[in-house]
Amino acid sequence: MTELPESKVDVLIIGAGPAGLMLALWLSRLGVKTRIVDKRTAKVYSGQADGFQVRSLEILDSFGVAERVWKEANRMLEVSFWNPDENGTIQRSAKSVNTIPGLSRFTESVLHQGRIEQFFIDGIRASYPSNETPLKVERMVIPTSLEIDEAAAEDPDPEAHPVTVTLRHLTEEEATPTQMLSNLSDGIFRSNLAEDDVAGILDRSKGREARDEVVRAKYVVGCDGAHSWTRKALGKEFEMKGESTDAIWGVMDIVPITDFPDIRFRTMIQNTAGALMIIPRENRMVRLYIQLKEVSAGGGRVDRSQITPEIIFKSAQRIFSPYKLEYHYCDWWTAYQIGQRTGDHFSKLNRVFLAGGKQSSHTSALHPSPPGTKSYDPDAVHTHSPKAGQGMNISMQDSYNLGWKIGLACKNILPRDVLSTYELERKKIAKDLIAFDGKFSKLFTGAPPKDIQSETGVSDDVFQKAFHTSRMFTTGVGVNYQPTVLVAKEADADPETEDDLPNTLTKSAAKSTQSLATNCKLGQRFPSYKVIRQSDARLWELHHKLPSNGRFRLVVFGGDISQPSQRDTVNALGAWLSSYLPKLPTIALGPASDPHSGQIKFKTDADPSIVDVVLVHSAPRDEIDLLRDVHEAYHPFDSKLGWDYDKVFSDGKTFYEEPERAYEKYGIDSGKGAVVGLRPDGYVGLVTPVGHDGAEQIQKWFDGIFQRS
Amino acid sequence: MTELPESKVDVLIIGAGPAGLMLALWLSRLGVKTRIVDKRTAKVYSGQADGFQVRSLEILDSFGVAERVWKEANRMLEVSFWNPDENGTIQRSAKSVNTIPGLSRFTESVLHQGRIEQFFIDGIRASYPSNETPLKVERMVIPTSLEIDEAAAEDPDPEAHPVTVTLRHLTEEEATPTQMLSNLSDGIFRSNLAEDDVAGILDRSKGREARDEVVRAKYVVGCDGAHSWTRKALGKEFEMKGESTDAIWGVMDIVPITDFPDIRFRTMIQNTAGALMIIPRENRMVRLYIQLKEVSAGGGRVDRSQITPEIIFKSAQRIFSPYKLEYHYCDWWTAYQIGQRTGDHFSKLNRVFLAGGKQSSHTSALHPSPPGTKSYDPDAVHTHSPKAGQGMNISMQDSYNLGWKIGLACKNILPRDVLSTYELERKKIAKDLIAFDGKFSKLFTGAPPKDIQSETGVSDDVFQKAFHTSRMFTTGVGVNYQPTVLVAKEADADPETEDDLPNTLTKSAAKSTQSLATNCKLGQRFPSYKVIRQSDARLWELHHKLPSNGRFRLVVFGGDISQPSQRDTVNALGAWLSSYLPKLPTIALGPASDPHSGQIKFKTDADPSIVDVVLVHSAPRDEIDLLRDVHEAYHPFDSKLGWDYDKVFSDGKTFYEEPERAYEKYGIDSGKGAVVGLRPDGYVGLVTPVGHDGAEQIQKWFDGIFQRS
Repeated sequence: MTELPESKVDVLIIGAGPAGLMLALWLSRLGVKTRIVDKRTAKVYSGQADGFQVRSLEILDSFGVAERVWKEANRMLEVSFWNPDENGTIQRSAKSVNTIPGLSRFTESVLHQGRIEQFFIDGIRASYPSNETPLKVERMVIPTSLEIDEAAAEDPDPEAHPVTVTLRHLTEEEATPTQMLSNLSDGIFRSNLAEDDVAGILDRSKGREARDEVVRAKYVVGCDGAHSWTRKALGKEFEMKGESTDAIWGVMDIVPITDFPDIRFRTMIQNTAGALMIIPRENRMVRLYIQLKEVSAGGGRVDRSQITPEIIFKSAQRIFSPYKLEYHYCDWWTAYQIGQRTGDHFSKLNRVFLAGGKQSSHTSALHPSPPGTKSYDPDAVHTHSPKAGQGMNISMQDSYNLGWKIGLACKNILPRDVLSTYELERKKIAKDLIAFDGKFSKLFTGAPPKDIQSETGVSDDVFQKAFHTSRMFTTGVGVNYQPTVLVAKEADADPETEDDLPNTLTKSAAKSTQSLATNCKLGQRFPSYKVIRQSDARLWELHHKLPSNGRFRLVVFGGDISQPSQRDTVNALGAWLSSYLPKLPTIALGPASDPHSGQIKFKTDADPSIVDVVLVHSAPRDEIDLLRDVHEAYHPFDSKLGWDYDKVFSDGKTFYEEPERAYEKYGIDSGKGAVVGLRPDGYVGLVTPVGHDGAEQIQKWFDGIFQRS
Repeated sequence: MTELPESKVDVLIIGAGPAGLMLALWLSRLGVKTRIVDKRTAKVYSGQADGFQVRSLEILDSFGVAERVWKEANRMLEVSFWNPDENGTIQRSAKSVNTIPGLSRFTESVLHQGRIEQFFIDGIRASYPSNETPLKVERMVIPTSLEIDEAAAEDPDPEAHPVTVTLRHLTEEEATPTQMLSNLSDGIFRSNLAEDDVAGILDRSKGREARDEVVRAKYVVGCDGAHSWTRKALGKEFEMKGESTDAIWGVMDIVPITDFPDIRFRTMIQNTAGALMIIPRENRMVRLYIQLKEVSAGGGRVDRSQITPEIIFKSAQRIFSPYKLEYHYCDWWTAYQIGQRTGDHFSKLNRVFLAGGKQSSHTSALHPSPPGTKSYDPDAVHTHSPKAGQGMNISMQDSYNLGWKIGLACKNILPRDVLSTYELERKKIAKDLIAFDGKFSKLFTGAPPKDIQSETGVSDDVFQKAFHTSRMFTTGVGVNYQPTVLVAKEADADPETEDDLPNTLTKSAAKSTQSLATNCKLGQRFPSYKVIRQSDARLWELHHKLPSNGRFRLVVFGGDISQPSQRDTVNALGAWLSSYLPKLPTIALGPASDPHSGQIKFKTDADPSIVDVVLVHSAPRDEIDLLRDVHEAYHPFDSKLGWDYDKVFSDGKTFYEEPERAYEKYGIDSGKGAVVGLRPDGYVGLVTPVGHDGAEQIQKWFDGIFQRS
């Protein structure tokens, strides 16, 4: 047998769905040598869709790729509940806000998955200078073996490549799912009612080892969904565990012809014929989730041939009655079996990781427990799995958490052990999801909300509160990471989540003072409010000045710097930063590192510090002269570009807008201010005073992150 | 000599700058068979830039191509004035708002011309279904002859092609300006200090007639700038007339290294060393307009060799003193001679048109009369010409006015004589510009504003008022078209502007009642405020529901339709519209006809009417059921797509936003409402009551437009 061709790469990503593409986007922005392979041809990605949590939109926006999603997606602003009246006729029983107002500049939205994958690919391309070849998805490529050299895995040499993967390049025929080959109208071939097709692909491509290659990687990330090949390759202890229930739901994307008045609102209908959820979509479409009462899995897997679009649609018509429902266009359909599965391990030796697809989270995250789902099991990791392995939001957020850690480890900026925080932080999400979803879903289980109100005494007020609490979590904004070196806060009462973490990571030496910034919660995402750029009076979402480019941040809320003593305090911190920051690593920034301010056309003098400093003061804007009044740490000089006029912002009013009151919204005293430390993913890691003690805590926090080992 | 190849086209556009591209965009959206040729290779378009008036941004947004401009451009929000103090040292004497707050959702902005040309090209491409070849700019093509068959020009047959143009296809060498070939660092080759290069190109390409072709067109539009070949081809009476003055200004685009505090504001500096204007730009650049006192044209054309970037920059440094000014990066530079030229005729036989470039408007439009310009002549058509033929805003607005008229004439929807309104409406702009600019500029002439205030008694208040009046015009929003069949209003006191109009066009039979909608001014652009979509509670800029797709509009402000009598009135109008509108032409809509709601994926049943109806009511949103309460005219049914849920909006509040008070902003009574009729370019043509008399006026207005001849 001839030697296979061999090559090296920093990171190999297996799977180019949203999780894999998010990771590829991160790594391309960080300039890390990456490959991403996918077993599919491009064309099977038509027909799918998904909902965007507001946090997912914020994350996409941090790379500059949310605008087109936000423009094209259908926004779901209000939710409507329909239940039978005393005659059994459905009527609207409640209407409510769908996303908590003020939580984010985004609201929950729905868009075709093919579009978001295109936006990711465009975002990846923008990461590269025009004279470099951008990272591209290598399609029709499948891994056939994966090995970790366990000794090399612990090698402190940043150039160690301990993971070896064999990749096979498929022909188009080999890569096309057999279901597609045999029956184009089969809507179920990617649902969890279908069998995994990897074995079939491997089988069909046997004898083609001549098209194999060997890749040696520093890190490998499996983003290959619920039927994860990578997961299987890692061994038994990585297997997902869980159960299926008897409940079957159908899904249809249609352009509805109906007189149902709330057809463009997210709506939950429940009557004796079953339960149904309307998700209004782009292009005049709606997605209908339809309970299929007449189809049952009978304790095992369901007979797929029982399920047709006709059966699903007839169920929908019965539930809509007396309103009429017809359609001319059906864009897509599928069906799925309610079930819960999860895995206990997210990484092996901090060299191979799993992201996305481990939780079958889609409906659960976007739509907590549709009413009438008798099969709800509060003890399982997860509730619903409308389309196996889709769970786009949790998947993307998994790899968003992982991307900067792997990237900065590859660049030798972060010690490699920080990668342990990935499993710690993301495993907690599944638990949180259950806790919230369980609490909320009980309000629905077994009876329509209206009846619950009368029979169980759940008042409208309690219901609304529970709905809001749930929303806080399901928006993705409620995610709250544990104390580690990355988040300088005290441990919660329940310490069990820290089990597996190395001692070096469990606790930051820094102490935060949460009360200084009550709405910048440690472990949670830093919110965005609008501030005014000092140099040109333009209003900016503060998030747009904190893009995902690998940098940590100190947001110095300097308070009222028109007061000499406060100004002195802020400038003393600036002077200290000017001497401390040069001791930290620097990071090269690519062309898309500042995606909301346009391309970086002119070359800077030197790479900036890994820590970016932004000053937001509360003094009257006209009383401050940028160069005269604030320390150069807040407007760094570059010998080719001059002073940076993009780092100082004020809270106040402009000729064009009402005052935004950012200090108030961030929960910060407008006199004395606060310093908020952010991780590269925008989560709050430190809250500390502006003064001398603040500098001490800042140093402890960063030293604990960068100077370990 | 062999026969030249011949072909036919509806519209031939000569010149692919902003005016030509705007026209091409319009015609591609309307599905009109078009060609657009340009003498240049693509590459000479680097280095230029221009400012966007808010109206230009609104127009681009009506095609869905403003978003990227708005994102990438630098916004100019405040303007700062610097003048010498008693010691002769410059100091800030005033700071003011740059665009009138509330006038538009946009503010004046500045972006590289190469970017906007790219956005136009992308917008043109989006106009075509994916299986059609989009209109492309044919570069390195130059016209060599133009003839109009005068008899055929008046042929009522819509298929007449009376204009014959010979085009020559150039080689790259022939198309490259000699200045570029000889000296890459010559910043002046496209300024008005350089000679026109068309003769040179033709000379170099002699003997290449074998690469000629003959095009027969229904219409030809010359968008080929100040040195317009088309203008010359039309004959002597189309020549531009005007004068040059002695004043020379230099222009530099640099990344400044300076301690001048207002470097990121639009700033006018004046001291004894001269006058200077700062236009902050994208990519950390600023554009400096610098008065060159040491260079003079001495009554004739200036010696170009006198002008170098070093001389220009030294002047800038002197004016900035005592502040320091240096640079490492210079992106572009040029110089220009102040002068005024204009033409008396904009079209010949309504078959060949001139658009853009006829007024040297750039600086004048964007920056009324820089201080210290001694050469100002209030009687000339125009004031300043910073870069000959650039005047991007007026140029784009010219062809925006022309595009739908030519397009709908080609589609046989509009009688051809309506094209006469182009010259009428656009020639008025030049006059208006003088009137406003003249009034405003006198405040500056000869002395810094500060001195004016003390010496001539011009108070700060008067100054600010004049500035605002001027701004209203220079934003492009103040444009006010005359009464014609397209604008049903009474003539102004001064009737001279109607000289050349055919009798059939001078007056609409409809009578407007302006007082019903005091901020929807007849002849002016319909403003945009936010309204809530009835069907899904989403807030929309009303402009985004009125895109440029060729349709006229009736915006029915239905008032409080929760009141039965008002609802009856609105529905009676709906019933009348249902019987009247089918008598009007229909129009096919392409894939980009609704650019703010995403692509049109599913095919409609039939082409819609040329008149689009949008209902905006003021009733409490929750009291209205779309299908039950309002006539089907406001939610038209399509047998394949169901009811249209995108045509009814309300004024009120949502869970997410403060009330927008659209009725109040439009100046409309929230009880009884009003109907506002819009032309396809968004200008108000009719204001009439909702009731019976309204229907009569609507019929008169549309009959006067469509049923003439």
